[in-house]
Amino acid sequence: MLSNHLQNGIETAKMVWSRIPNAEEGDHEHAGLLRKSDGSSVESLEYEVVENHAYWEEQDQRGKLFLVYYVVVKWFFALLIGIGTGLAAVFINLSVENFAGWKFALTFSIIQKSYVAGFIVYVLINLVLVLSSVYIITHFAPAAAGSGIPEIKGYLNGVDIHGVLLFRTLIGKIFGSIGSVGGGLALGKEGPLVHTGACIASLLGQGGSTKYHLSSRWLQIFKSDRDRRDLVTCGCAAGVAAAFRAPVGGVLFALEEVTSWWRSQLMWRVFFTSAIVAVVVRTAMGWCKNGNCGHFGSGGFIIWDISGGQEDYSFEELLPMAIIGVIGGLLGALFNQLTLYISYWRRNHLHKKGNQVKFYCSKEKEYNDLATIFFNTQDDAIRNLFSAKTIHEFSAQSLLTFLVMFYTLAVVTFGTAVPAGQFIPGIMIGSTYGRLVGMFVVNFYKKLSIEEGTYALLGAASFLGGSMRMTVSLCVIMVEITNNLKLLPLIMLVLLISKAVGDAFNEGLYEEQARLKGIPLLESKPKYQMRKMTAKDACRQRVVSFLRVVKVADIVSILQSNKHNGFPVIDHTRTGETLVIGLMPRSHLLVLLQSKVDFQHSPLPSDPRPGSRPIRHTPSEFVKPASSKGISIEDIHLSSDDLEMYIDLAPFLNPSPYIVPEDMSLTKVYNLFRQLGLRHLFVVPRPSRVIGLITRKDLLIEDSEESDTVELQSTSISASR
Amino acid sequence: MLSNHLQNGIETAKMVWSRIPNAEEGDHEHAGLLRKSDGSSVESLEYEVVENHAYWEEQDQRGKLFLVYYVVVKWFFALLIGIGTGLAAVFINLSVENFAGWKFALTFSIIQKSYVAGFIVYVLINLVLVLSSVYIITHFAPAAAGSGIPEIKGYLNGVDIHGVLLFRTLIGKIFGSIGSVGGGLALGKEGPLVHTGACIASLLGQGGSTKYHLSSRWLQIFKSDRDRRDLVTCGCAAGVAAAFRAPVGGVLFALEEVTSWWRSQLMWRVFFTSAIVAVVVRTAMGWCKNGNCGHFGSGGFIIWDISGGQEDYSFEELLPMAIIGVIGGLLGALFNQLTLYISYWRRNHLHKKGNQVKFYCSKEKEYNDLATIFFNTQDDAIRNLFSAKTIHEFSAQSLLTFLVMFYTLAVVTFGTAVPAGQFIPGIMIGSTYGRLVGMFVVNFYKKLSIEEGTYALLGAASFLGGSMRMTVSLCVIMVEITNNLKLLPLIMLVLLISKAVGDAFNEGLYEEQARLKGIPLLESKPKYQMRKMTAKDACRQRVVSFLRVVKVADIVSILQSNKHNGFPVIDHTRTGETLVIGLMPRSHLLVLLQSKVDFQHSPLPSDPRPGSRPIRHTPSEFVKPASSKGISIEDIHLSSDDLEMYIDLAPFLNPSPYIVPEDMSLTKVYNLFRQLGLRHLFVVPRPSRVIGLITRKDLLIEDSEESDTVELQSTSISASR
Repeated sequence: MLSNHLQNGIETAKMVWSRIPNAEEGDHEHAGLLRKSDGSSVESLEYEVVENHAYWEEQDQRGKLFLVYYVVVKWFFALLIGIGTGLAAVFINLSVENFAGWKFALTFSIIQKSYVAGFIVYVLINLVLVLSSVYIITHFAPAAAGSGIPEIKGYLNGVDIHGVLLFRTLIGKIFGSIGSVGGGLALGKEGPLVHTGACIASLLGQGGSTKYHLSSRWLQIFKSDRDRRDLVTCGCAAGVAAAFRAPVGGVLFALEEVTSWWRSQLMWRVFFTSAIVAVVVRTAMGWCKNGNCGHFGSGGFIIWDISGGQEDYSFEELLPMAIIGVIGGLLGALFNQLTLYISYWRRNHLHKKGNQVKFYCSKEKEYNDLATIFFNTQDDAIRNLFSAKTIHEFSAQSLLTFLVMFYTLAVVTFGTAVPAGQFIPGIMIGSTYGRLVGMFVVNFYKKLSIEEGTYALLGAASFLGGSMRMTVSLCVIMVEITNNLKLLPLIMLVLLISKAVGDAFNEGLYEEQARLKGIPLLESKPKYQMRKMTAKDACRQRVVSFLRVVKVADIVSILQSNKHNGFPVIDHTRTGETLVIGLMPRSHLLVLLQSKVDFQHSPLPSDPRPGSRPIRHTPSEFVKPASSKGISIEDIHLSSDDLEMYIDLAPFLNPSPYIVPEDMSLTKVYNLFRQLGLRHLFVVPRPSRVIGLITRKDLLIEDSEESDTVELQSTSISASR
Repeated sequence: MLSNHLQNGIETAKMVWSRIPNAEEGDHEHAGLLRKSDGSSVESLEYEVVENHAYWEEQDQRGKLFLVYYVVVKWFFALLIGIGTGLAAVFINLSVENFAGWKFALTFSIIQKSYVAGFIVYVLINLVLVLSSVYIITHFAPAAAGSGIPEIKGYLNGVDIHGVLLFRTLIGKIFGSIGSVGGGLALGKEGPLVHTGACIASLLGQGGSTKYHLSSRWLQIFKSDRDRRDLVTCGCAAGVAAAFRAPVGGVLFALEEVTSWWRSQLMWRVFFTSAIVAVVVRTAMGWCKNGNCGHFGSGGFIIWDISGGQEDYSFEELLPMAIIGVIGGLLGALFNQLTLYISYWRRNHLHKKGNQVKFYCSKEKEYNDLATIFFNTQDDAIRNLFSAKTIHEFSAQSLLTFLVMFYTLAVVTFGTAVPAGQFIPGIMIGSTYGRLVGMFVVNFYKKLSIEEGTYALLGAASFLGGSMRMTVSLCVIMVEITNNLKLLPLIMLVLLISKAVGDAFNEGLYEEQARLKGIPLLESKPKYQMRKMTAKDACRQRVVSFLRVVKVADIVSILQSNKHNGFPVIDHTRTGETLVIGLMPRSHLLVLLQSKVDFQHSPLPSDPRPGSRPIRHTPSEFVKPASSKGISIEDIHLSSDDLEMYIDLAPFLNPSPYIVPEDMSLTKVYNLFRQLGLRHLFVVPRPSRVIGLITRKDLLIEDSEESDTVELQSTSISASR
């Protein structure tokens, strides 16, 4: 049964991991440096503004009015992301609830006649649902498999994984979620909703999907990766807000777990998006209460109100609560480790054999055999586990059995070829052992004021804390979904313990998964050994430079011979000295080669005066569309005449990339690179002189109107006195 | 009356603003650049690590064990900050409540005999309390005046205002708060508690107060401004958590409003501190419930439970709620503007006249005349305003009268010489007009399910949002203090509207105050006009460089002749070229001049080989103590022999400050400066060549043990299969 089940991962792995270097095949460099991002499916994002001539031309044309328009569109997009994610969540919930309702109604009517027939029908329905989900993922949108949170985390850290934010991924995620959750697998819809929100945001950011002719010209003002990053952050928060109806939790989740950069202005926009989601979901639920949505409205959104539960706690109870925290940390760390092993095992399996047919039926049957016992009532099961005033509702044996089996299932289900969230399984596992501890506490202290439901809630928090290693956002989400603020200090305590225990063993679930998937995340802190290294030590590849005016044939041969994505451009001054005049990104070179309009016959620089030469490109031409891989050098076909021509690179390069002196310690370099979200950084010799020194004072430039106003104000006051 | 009252600000203004350049006296530069930080009371912080020889020596001596010790102390300090701030909050509350209790008991017993005598006694008690607070602030700790949040915001932005984080400020803040709040002024204790938390954190960071011999050697490992910044962030969050018993709100407040830099690791530590505060406060309250603390326990901490109130809302109600948001934005913006005017007015007043005697008595009497009507029951008043099931408890006329008078009072009280928080007055004002709107709504819609208390709450949120311009943290704080999660979407809506309305008029209260106090905050976004400027344009002061080996007399004369805080150091190579070898901070030069041990007779560089020359300084010697101004050039007395000697600066300088090319656009320079929290940035000529190019791949250095483990894991799995 187990080995059958594990084959399930093969398909996913084949689709998702096929391009990732196999860590077991001696791919390590012995210098202790892993070449993780060599896989061609992963590319760094460019958060820096390339201040080339086209950019300046565009800036000059834009007035103050454009700024207003820009801000309006930004907020309009935040609104749309909120509405879109809210509607997607409602749609998924509606479908899942209705499938569950039909399933139960049908099974119940058949079971009256024959138990076996009812069972078979039930299994078949689930089978069809899960199969459809698997089919969608494997044949239509492979990037929609799994939770999606590691990929989004990677995107916001500056790594673009191709296919993650496509329109087809969005569709696959939504319908795949309906199939897998409706089919009763041991997984939730929260991670997928985060991914859904991010997809919606990214599609809006590029002004729609060009492939499906859904794009609009006037919305395409977010051409830089930096703007898209902000939108995707909004999308993440919206996803969490929609999944848990927890708007504050959504904001915090985006902030604590997903993003790598954050500005306080962004906080407000993210908050707005989450609020919109809350309003949309609430409106839809109100509409559904009137019976417009079939079976929906009974438990579609996760709100487990335990306000009738324990309001106070005594100090003796802190010990068992701390124990829950420790258990949560241990089980969570174990969960991360086991899922890592299983993923490795699957990957090895994949590399050794090639069988991937005919495992659906046998696997799914196994699933649903168990599903009939455990699943399809996940929300209700949690509500029962959290319930107050129900001491000894469950026996210890049944809880323990449930715990062991569900834990095993959650581990083996992880990483299958369906959209899968880890929150609901985590809450299930945690609340089970939490309730177990609660039962012992009741027996031991013999007090009736102790509620097992409270312990179940703490258990859920502890397991999620031990596995995902979030603290603040998880805490707020737990409070928001249980609607009970009084338990906040206890949840905090348990979370702190479980995170500390878990951290002693391994990294958080999403970091482990990102590492496994080969997403090269840059942590916020530099590694310890970087203190002893200098910037020069880190440069391991030979730099390939261009001259300012370069022959097309040379560009083609250089682009073909290496995989660098950025090239320094060197110019000679009249006195014969060399001078670095900027950085030329590979993608820009490819655009120039493809368009051919800038080719010139003369090997001399064009007139440097502005306006002497029309700029034939808009900045948007240089932006790689988020939904495709961009052009590659193999796609470009040039005639032999073209190859003999020249290009003057000066108008197209980024004239001032960030630079560091060669002997700067790598810690400082890392901070610069990470904090500013760079893609390329020049290591240069020590400067020969200092032209100026910039301090805080030099950067305090007031808006000229504003300082006028201040002066006026003070004058008017002086006058009125 | 009013002019009498306004004289109150003179003393404060004299103490706090005396060193700030007067903006009205033509101090502007006409290039649109304000020289704000010229005041000698404000200095930039150094967040960069100065990697000089002493630093490397120390790094070499430290092993992995030190890292563990460092982490342990960091968490231990977080614990201590939590406990300290919690205890301070409990102490303040205890004292205020007990004073209020005694006051009422005494007045009540006297009033039985004579109404006039009771009134006089009551006024006298308040007078004494407020006077003692004013005395503490004016004669003992001038930096403790006001809310303190703008100063802390400045500190975390990288500006050190002398005296803000001293031990005496801490003491002044605590006792001043007791006096001013206990004396019934129109202000709260929340801002002061934030300042208190920050002071505790800063004092711990420097290992105690050396002036009062409370320091401990083994705790002094946080010598850099960067570590202290993290501690102060924890302290801020602890202050808010203690003031409102809102731990999550505290974390968010620190994040959204106060800090300028944030890392997700820090979030966990801040969260821990807040949780500790919550536990400490809860424990103290439990202890007080048993009657151990006099009158304490009835309303000392702000928890206005409105859980019995309105749980649902209809769509028609959204319009009046939006109106509340608009009113909040307008009144909040007006409040900010009026307080700004008053502060300007006071400052002018101060500069014109010099009378500052004998205003206490007359002024305080005026205060308490009103105070007997309005104050001393702030907590209870708010509780009544928020109360559910009490329709038409207040008449519209009395609410309107209260609103106008309290608003006026809050405006004129702002900026007096006492510790003053703006939260409670804001909540008072907001809940009053909120309740007014609620009354009209009840009359208009004629539905009994509408609760005026809910409108009062929304009004409070809207006024705070309109004045302070926070969204997420304010929302969470409101939810935490009212203990009602169901109102979250409504609070969000109202906050979004009031912040948007307020932003249309002016900046937030804290930004306005920081600007007024001359704290040069660097906003997170570069100004629009920086797009057109280059790094070179921003350098307006002539650079003063040192040679590597420099005569002591030259150092002294240079330090005396200018006020620069950083000097580039130039060396000559054997081929005669110049080379910038680093940055020498003024403070380090002063330490070298004072200690004299590094003076040498020869004008030749010392042996560059490491170990050839003992390092006579530890890095801690170079750290400016947070509690004093550091040494100045006037404090150093050198003999004429000393002046003839030389110093080799190479071992003491920061060898690799960040550099930018001269023609980089100022937007990029600003981002670098702001994101990394720099103090000095070198503007250098374009480099002549590129030595290397650093990309994400180059910075992905794995811990060597860890990659071994991963390999082992996969091997063991392969073997077990």
